[in-house]
Amino acid sequence: MNIISFPEKEQWPALLARPVFEAKDIEEKVLPILAQVKEQGDEGIRILARKFDQTELSDLAFSEAEMAAAEEKLDHELKEAIHQAYRNIYAFHKTQLQPSEKIETMPGVTCWRRSVGIEKVGIYIPGGSAPLFSTVLMLGIPAQIAGCREVVLCTPSDHPAILYAAKLVGVTKAFRIGGAQAVAAMAYGTESVPKVYKIFGPGNQYVTTAKMLISKEGIAIDMPAGPSEVAVYADDTAVPDFVAADLLSQAEHGPDSQVILVSESLTLLESVNTALQSQLEKLPRKELAARSIANSKAILVRSQEEAILLLNRYAAEHLILSIQNAEAVSEKIINAGSIFLGNYTPESCGDYASGTNHTLPTNGYAKAYSGVSVDSFVKKITVQSITEQGIRNIGPTVQAMAAAESLDAHKMAVSIRLESLLQ
Amino acid sequence: MNIISFPEKEQWPALLARPVFEAKDIEEKVLPILAQVKEQGDEGIRILARKFDQTELSDLAFSEAEMAAAEEKLDHELKEAIHQAYRNIYAFHKTQLQPSEKIETMPGVTCWRRSVGIEKVGIYIPGGSAPLFSTVLMLGIPAQIAGCREVVLCTPSDHPAILYAAKLVGVTKAFRIGGAQAVAAMAYGTESVPKVYKIFGPGNQYVTTAKMLISKEGIAIDMPAGPSEVAVYADDTAVPDFVAADLLSQAEHGPDSQVILVSESLTLLESVNTALQSQLEKLPRKELAARSIANSKAILVRSQEEAILLLNRYAAEHLILSIQNAEAVSEKIINAGSIFLGNYTPESCGDYASGTNHTLPTNGYAKAYSGVSVDSFVKKITVQSITEQGIRNIGPTVQAMAAAESLDAHKMAVSIRLESLLQ
Repeated sequence: MNIISFPEKEQWPALLARPVFEAKDIEEKVLPILAQVKEQGDEGIRILARKFDQTELSDLAFSEAEMAAAEEKLDHELKEAIHQAYRNIYAFHKTQLQPSEKIETMPGVTCWRRSVGIEKVGIYIPGGSAPLFSTVLMLGIPAQIAGCREVVLCTPSDHPAILYAAKLVGVTKAFRIGGAQAVAAMAYGTESVPKVYKIFGPGNQYVTTAKMLISKEGIAIDMPAGPSEVAVYADDTAVPDFVAADLLSQAEHGPDSQVILVSESLTLLESVNTALQSQLEKLPRKELAARSIANSKAILVRSQEEAILLLNRYAAEHLILSIQNAEAVSEKIINAGSIFLGNYTPESCGDYASGTNHTLPTNGYAKAYSGVSVDSFVKKITVQSITEQGIRNIGPTVQAMAAAESLDAHKMAVSIRLESLLQ
Repeated sequence: MNIISFPEKEQWPALLARPVFEAKDIEEKVLPILAQVKEQGDEGIRILARKFDQTELSDLAFSEAEMAAAEEKLDHELKEAIHQAYRNIYAFHKTQLQPSEKIETMPGVTCWRRSVGIEKVGIYIPGGSAPLFSTVLMLGIPAQIAGCREVVLCTPSDHPAILYAAKLVGVTKAFRIGGAQAVAAMAYGTESVPKVYKIFGPGNQYVTTAKMLISKEGIAIDMPAGPSEVAVYADDTAVPDFVAADLLSQAEHGPDSQVILVSESLTLLESVNTALQSQLEKLPRKELAARSIANSKAILVRSQEEAILLLNRYAAEHLILSIQNAEAVSEKIINAGSIFLGNYTPESCGDYASGTNHTLPTNGYAKAYSGVSVDSFVKKITVQSITEQGIRNIGPTVQAMAAAESLDAHKMAVSIRLESLLQ
């Protein structure tokens, strides 16, 4: 890692900048895919699978038998691990459901909010080298807790762990559809695939561009996407070998991965660099990780105050605080997706099983966006109920405000009720 | 109103369809405005104000003196009404802050969520005939409760009630900037206007298109926008005069407004129609409302079950239940922005002062989106802390899952810690 010593604040924007991708070209490729699925439905999906994936899709849906057979194919240890992760993720997300509380804002005027699961949601899980069954858990469990009635899964992978996790979280329909056409299928609906109201999940640039495009049409999406990233803030209490391992676990996602290490200790930065070299040697995906590490930055700062300022400016998806008083410092972090405290909380625990969600805001979006949670799968409907006494109490306020906004009919809706009560 | 008797389900999509606007043309007009503000900052804003509004903007910011003087200009009754609305909205929104709760998902593995106010937010308030000071309250109060540090307001209006409300909710900087250029100023920042991370507020099609465009660049927005709408479900316990007044208070927003009345009683529908005619006569904005009412639909249905199905399909921004057992029926509503129960809860009370928020999902977006709340102004950052015992407990689960996803470095980040604990 390149060590940058005491950069001035004017250098921070360049230092913390994320790579910028040109979306325009990809949009032009994705738009016809969306149109074809919208117009031709299932047949459009089959044509696109032939064209892009050289795949002949006879049945779009995974059968019940296929779903059931997935369990047989999993080894016992992995099945147990999936169950343990399920329990932890479920336990943490369960507490995110907010109970409805009635508030009497003034006598006779009562307001409350009801959390209602989004009726139909879609989950996309990409194919490729890593079968992301963990993401099935991360998206399916909050959907299950939220009470979504229809949970549709699209994935080009038939890995048994994906199908098994899908069954566990109560996916109602699963389809072997990949790419931008899967997003289109769930956004518009086809003969086989139900139209959903919100689409979740990771994917390549075609998938994420398709999500951005359908979100312009009013279909909700989880959040805008960018390459995964980690920032580590470490002091001399950190174990360099642990820090190096955490940086590498981010770097193995690919050369786009963003890795930043911040410290007030040059010794620590140098020790981590040494540890990185020796651990890199042992990794099967060594080349991939090495390229990402070469792009990453080790930043030496003057003080903890400066470190916190820089980390808040960066707004990391994952932030590891390998420092003394990690919890106290975490209270000063205002921009991050998920925070990991101390020497024994590697990011990979949050990626799989600690209980928190691993679908998190990248690319600095943590300044305004939260990670996925049960909130992402519910709508909160407000309700109000006003009694005769209530309208007498609140009426004059509404009349005065409506009149001042020149909305006469708004005022009349109150006046007509108040007058009826005088009779 | 046109009464449609017992429409078949196949007719529902056409009956419940919203008007579709062609965004492409407007995008082409808005893109150069965004670019000009991005490149030229304050000077770009001044040039655009000259061009579009024939206005010479010397000071972009409202001065402290102007903000203070606003209070003097307001009459006592309106000031009192604003204060009453403030108290009710504050009381209801205050309960939306979710406390942080630590969950031990397995021994030694603790997870929690911290709600943190988005550091910098922007509020847009349009000019035009209605000075929407109520919207300043609806957006500013949750920002205040969330603890947003910088709350920027842009508005082309200098109505004292807008400036007074802005002061009340703690707006930190207010600017006399209107239109798409205001959205651009808050999205990119200029010499005067701070760059914010999320932009809220209503506006014309230029403003809402600007919001959609900047949201593609990663600036968050409150929600996609469409024309305002109300659905009323009424039975023979409803007062036709009240229902008519509620429909008109929606209709006066303009000819785009969507108004739907649903009932199992033809008598009720006919009585409402009669009441509408006589109330329309008394309205100053009579022509506007009449055009909107002419486009609206009174739908006669066979049963309550059918009514609920239709209302959930429509997903109204505002839903008034003027029926017996309104609260029990409201529990069966899964798609709506805000619900108003019984004869004495007109929509206008929610628009101004009941306590609920009036920034709500239109255009059927209530199927996936919630109205604005304190949630809209916070991010929830997850935190996890794992002890030595905790990593022993959770480690094997993470190792098995990482191995199955072929993410070796993820596995190593756990292995290296477990091995160190064996020594």
